[in-house]
Parts: sequence; structure tokens; C-alpha cells
Amino acid sequence: AACGPREQAAAPAAAPAAPAVITGETVRWRLASTFPRALDTIWGAAEVFAKAVSDATGGRFQVSTHPAGELVPAMGVFDAAQAGTIECAHTANYFFFGKEDALALANGGISFGLNGRQMTSWFYEGNGLALSRELLDTFNLVNFACGNTGAQMGGWFRREIRSPADLQGMRFRAGGFAGRVLERLGVVPLAMPAGEIYQALERGTVDGAEFVGPYDDEKLGFHRVAPFYYYPGFWEAGTQLDLLINKTAFNALSPEYKAIVHNAAAFAHTTMLARYDALNPAALKRLVAGGTRLMPFPRSVMDTAFRAAHELYAELNATNPRWKKIYDDQIAFRRDQVLWHGLAEASFDSYMQLQGRNNRL
Amino acid sequence: AACGPREQAAAPAAAPAAPAVITGETVRWRLASTFPRALDTIWGAAEVFAKAVSDATGGRFQVSTHPAGELVPAMGVFDAAQAGTIECAHTANYFFFGKEDALALANGGISFGLNGRQMTSWFYEGNGLALSRELLDTFNLVNFACGNTGAQMGGWFRREIRSPADLQGMRFRAGGFAGRVLERLGVVPLAMPAGEIYQALERGTVDGAEFVGPYDDEKLGFHRVAPFYYYPGFWEAGTQLDLLINKTAFNALSPEYKAIVHNAAAFAHTTMLARYDALNPAALKRLVAGGTRLMPFPRSVMDTAFRAAHELYAELNATNPRWKKIYDDQIAFRRDQVLWHGLAEASFDSYMQLQGRNNRL
Repeated sequence: AACGPREQAAAPAAAPAAPAVITGETVRWRLASTFPRALDTIWGAAEVFAKAVSDATGGRFQVSTHPAGELVPAMGVFDAAQAGTIECAHTANYFFFGKEDALALANGGISFGLNGRQMTSWFYEGNGLALSRELLDTFNLVNFACGNTGAQMGGWFRREIRSPADLQGMRFRAGGFAGRVLERLGVVPLAMPAGEIYQALERGTVDGAEFVGPYDDEKLGFHRVAPFYYYPGFWEAGTQLDLLINKTAFNALSPEYKAIVHNAAAFAHTTMLARYDALNPAALKRLVAGGTRLMPFPRSVMDTAFRAAHELYAELNATNPRWKKIYDDQIAFRRDQVLWHGLAEASFDSYMQLQGRNNRL
Repeated sequence: AACGPREQAAAPAAAPAAPAVITGETVRWRLASTFPRALDTIWGAAEVFAKAVSDATGGRFQVSTHPAGELVPAMGVFDAAQAGTIECAHTANYFFFGKEDALALANGGISFGLNGRQMTSWFYEGNGLALSRELLDTFNLVNFACGNTGAQMGGWFRREIRSPADLQGMRFRAGGFAGRVLERLGVVPLAMPAGEIYQALERGTVDGAEFVGPYDDEKLGFHRVAPFYYYPGFWEAGTQLDLLINKTAFNALSPEYKAIVHNAAAFAHTTMLARYDALNPAALKRLVAGGTRLMPFPRSVMDTAFRAAHELYAELNATNPRWKKIYDDQIAFRRDQVLWHGLAEASFDSYMQLQGRNNRL
């Protein structure tokens, strides 16, 4: 896939019938991603965004895209954008919960949170944008929704998980804020970027690992070292990816270029989940054909995790006003969404799934 | 809500730090919607699109938005855009299945079709865009996804539906292509635009009616004349709204303005479903508090409709090559999506719905 500065895009293609010529000022930005180039889904959103900006400006506003490690390390992108070393980062806020737990709320990255569609509704048409902008502003950043993974798989395990007791002492790679809940289940959560997980699994540094879902996980090779593939990833039902822009860089843009960034991010946002959905089914079938065993987490694990998560949330509500302000809003939104999605959406989807199981599709 | 030509937006706000000035050519388009201004959800997407285009061009590219009947009748927008009387229409392709049944596939408007998220995946990252563009091109139109309703409710009935027999002879307002399936169940389907449904219900011209979901339906007043509110609307699980642009008008745009239209449509596309999700829960609660009775369609009705729909599809596959080309692609995509969504998404959502029913959210 094309990457780096888009020199070729600088000259607009000749278009005989085109009356409108835009002569905006030239802007060049660097975007650093938390993800490796090989993951055309989650890394891909950065390229979709950059191309959409370039296309809308005849190449005058160019965003060069850089995978993890090229300009800054995977987990250095937040600080780099905050400091202005780069103009923007493509990442997920929850990776940086060590700075502030509320960052995990800002991208929906909490256990038993909103699903992908609900998260976009909260962000676009609920209070999500305003609340997260207020939080990110304290880090000198302006945030845009720029992708969503949908409900993730629960990850890869070397042995069956029959009860919460089987999780005790397990060293498990989990992204972002998930570890805050998993550690309450006795898991030893380990954070590491995508590019390092396979080796950790192979060497036995971790006993299990999750990333996103079949298409990414297959590329990362997890199925070669762990046979049991659990679902759902209750810690990431609708994780949003974030475009984090240095505030000074953003404010230096004209109103038109700000709007172009906004619209381009929206296109990239929706494209990511669409791409995951388009690519995951075939990967899932390949994995199962290769011997992967799909397993739902037992109800006892789900219930234990649900209780542990909400105990954590109660503690944070009592101690962290920045957390509480966003949590109270998001959780009220969740209550309504679950009620609403339980009617037409759930009854339609479950009917279709029944038809699928009966080979009628 | 602001509407019509955006004269105020023509002058960009003064921005001291802004270095980039765009001096693109002035373009003025008229957009005619199939929907009344009162429906800020489905009509609203046209305004979101127009504002996004205006913002990205400093007001130089203005799209004036016109509700049903202002420039052309609700169902006249397709012809008007095709003829170039207006530059673009905001509507749903399936309303025009009388011209070509395959138009209903082009916006996912078929019974037991893709849900909202799956439709966007097919359109953005499957073959949906290419296949629908090829079809709309024969009508001198360039189409963009510009909204999705999500799974709709099944509509309002004056009496309970206990079996398919209860549908026999019922005069029922149903949007678009739904009538082609409902008539096979003995229903007398009647097509009419949103603005005319309430009066038809009140006068008894129809025995029941559907539009979209709680928020729109409440505004349209259906609950005042029919107490039973059924779900799901199996004939519209993920209806996409379409921006249909006259081909000559679109081709006259510069590459930059074409990209700006593309990105603005993407933002409007995602905003519509986000808005429906944000607004539907409260409306649902108001309706139920006012006496509306929520009812799932009986399994026998779902099964009868599923069989009838697929008999129709088999007939169209055998007789209409334009239908078959799109159907075969979309239905293979559906099979994979239902399989994939049945794992992490379905198990997470159903667990959360269980927690909701148990008052744990």
C-alpha cells in the first residue's frame, strides 16, 4: 500500500470539464500510528484519512503516514502529538490510561461498554464529542473519531477456560484499559504493541493474547501458537480509534481545512469498521478450517468480569471527577441503547442467525 | 432548523492563525429530498451534507436543501435529478423499484437483507459501490451512501397479528420494495410519502402503517390511531439513504469538489444512524408510557415472509439479469456477515440485553 509523503498526488489530474480550481495554501503534516503497516484495517484508516484530505485539496494538504516505530514508538504517539513533534497521531486513547483513566471512556474502550454503533452515536450525536474534546484539550490535543473495531474477539488461549479459576495467574496480552478489569480476575495483564505479541506468545512470555479479530489475528499468527479462540472480547465491544491532533497545528488551519480534516476523519472512521466486517468472515473461515476452536466464554466468566468491571467503575467514580463526568453520561447512554437495540435490531439479527444455522441463507 | 441557501456561511469566519485561503470557484446546487423538514433524522442528513460541503469550501460550494414538495414532489426527486432539473436528490433508491427492481438492492432495501452495519460494509468495502454505480449510471445518476436507518420497526397495527392469516386483506402503508413481499402475504400494500400517512390512518384509508422507528413515528402521530407497535421491520433491516447526483452536474465539478462531496456524504451517512440511535430510545419510552404496546411479530409471520421473499428473489433472479448480478453478490455477502456477526457481536449484545432486563445497567 502507498505510504509516506504523497508527492504524486500534488499535481491534480487534468479534468477537462472541471470549472473549479482551489488554490489553498500548502500544508504538510506527519501522522504517526500506533499500528504496524501490515494491518491494513487499523493502520489503513490513517491512509484513508490522508488520501481523503489530499483529494479534497488537490494535494495541497498532505499528511504523510508513518507506522509504529518509524517516527516514534507505537506508544509514543500520544506524547509526540501533545508536544508537537508530530502534527497528529492515529491511536486509541485507552492505551494511555496510565496518564488518566478517563481516556479509556473517551474512546469507548471499557469493559462492557458501548458496542461500535452505539459508540458512534454517543460520539457524534450524544455528548461524546464535547466530553472527550474537553478531556483531550487538557493534553493539548484535538480529537476526532477515526475508526472502530466493532466487538472484538476475546483472544487466543492455550487451554480451555471453564471457569474464572482458569484465568488465575494467566499472563495475558490485553490492549489498553482491559488490564484494569482482568487483573481483578487474577489475570496478569501485559500491555505490548501489536508487533510484539506473536514473539511473546511463541516464547511463552505470555500464556494468551488478544488483538482485535480474525483478520488481524491471523496476520499476527496467533493461531499458530494457541488453539482456543474465545469470544466475545467483553473488554472491547466497540473500541474507537482516535485521530489526535496537536492543538496548535489544528488551530493554525483555515476554517476550510479544519472542515476538510473533519469530513476526511468521518470517512476514515466509517471505512475502518466496514473493512473489518468485509474481511473478518473469510479469515474466520480460514482459521476454523485450520483447526482453530471457537469458544464462547462461559457465563461464569462473563458474570465475574461484569461484577469486577463495575466495582472498578464505582471506585473510579468515587475518586476521579474527570472519570465520573464522562462515565455517568456514557453509562446512561448505554442503558438506553441496550434497551433500544434489544428490539428491532436484536430480533432481526437473531432471526437471520437462526436461518444461517439452518442453512437457509 | 436552518435551511435553504446558506448565505450566512458564504463569508468565512475571521481566523487570526489561519494561513490557508481557498479560492475555489462558486458552485450552487439544489438538493430535493423525499422527506418533510419535520423529520430532522432522515431529512436532516441532507442538511448535514450541505453544511459539510459549505464548511469545506468556505461557502463557495453551496447546496440549498428543499423538503418534499418544495421544488418537486416527494417521489419526483429521482426523475428531477436524472433530468437535471435539480442537481441532486436525497432519497432511497427502493422507492423507484417500479423503474427497476434492482434499485432496491442498490440501497439494501429488501426484506431480510443486510442490517445497517453490514450494508455499509458491502457498500464501502464490498462490491456495493461499484455495482450500484453501474446501475445508477444507466439513469444518468452518480450515487453516494447518505444515511441509514438501522433495523426499522415493523409498524403500527390496529389489532394484534397472531398469524399470517391476520394479515390477509390488510391495507398497509409500506415504504418502497416492501410491498413486493407483503403482497405475497395477502397484504394490500400502499405506497405514500411520510407526510400523507397519518391522514390515511386516521381516515381508515389504510389499516396499518410503518415508517422508520419510534422517533419519526411519534412525530408522524401513528400512536394516536393504532396501539400495537410490531418489530422487527423485516423488510428494512438496514435501509440506506442515497444522494443521487445528476451525472453531468457531478462531472462538471473539479476533482477537489468531487472529493469534498464524497467526504461530506460520508459524514452525513454516519450521522443519520447515529442520530436515530441517539433519539429513538427516549421516543420509545414516551410511546410505551403513553400506552403503545410493543409486540414481536410471531415466528409464523417471520417464516412465511422469509419464504415469500426468497421465492420473489428466485423469480427475479430468473428473469432480471440486472437484479441477479447485484443479488448474487449481496446475498453471498449476507451469508458471511450473518456468520461473523453471530459470534462476538451477538454474544456481547445479548449478554448486555440480559443485564438490562435484570436492571444491572
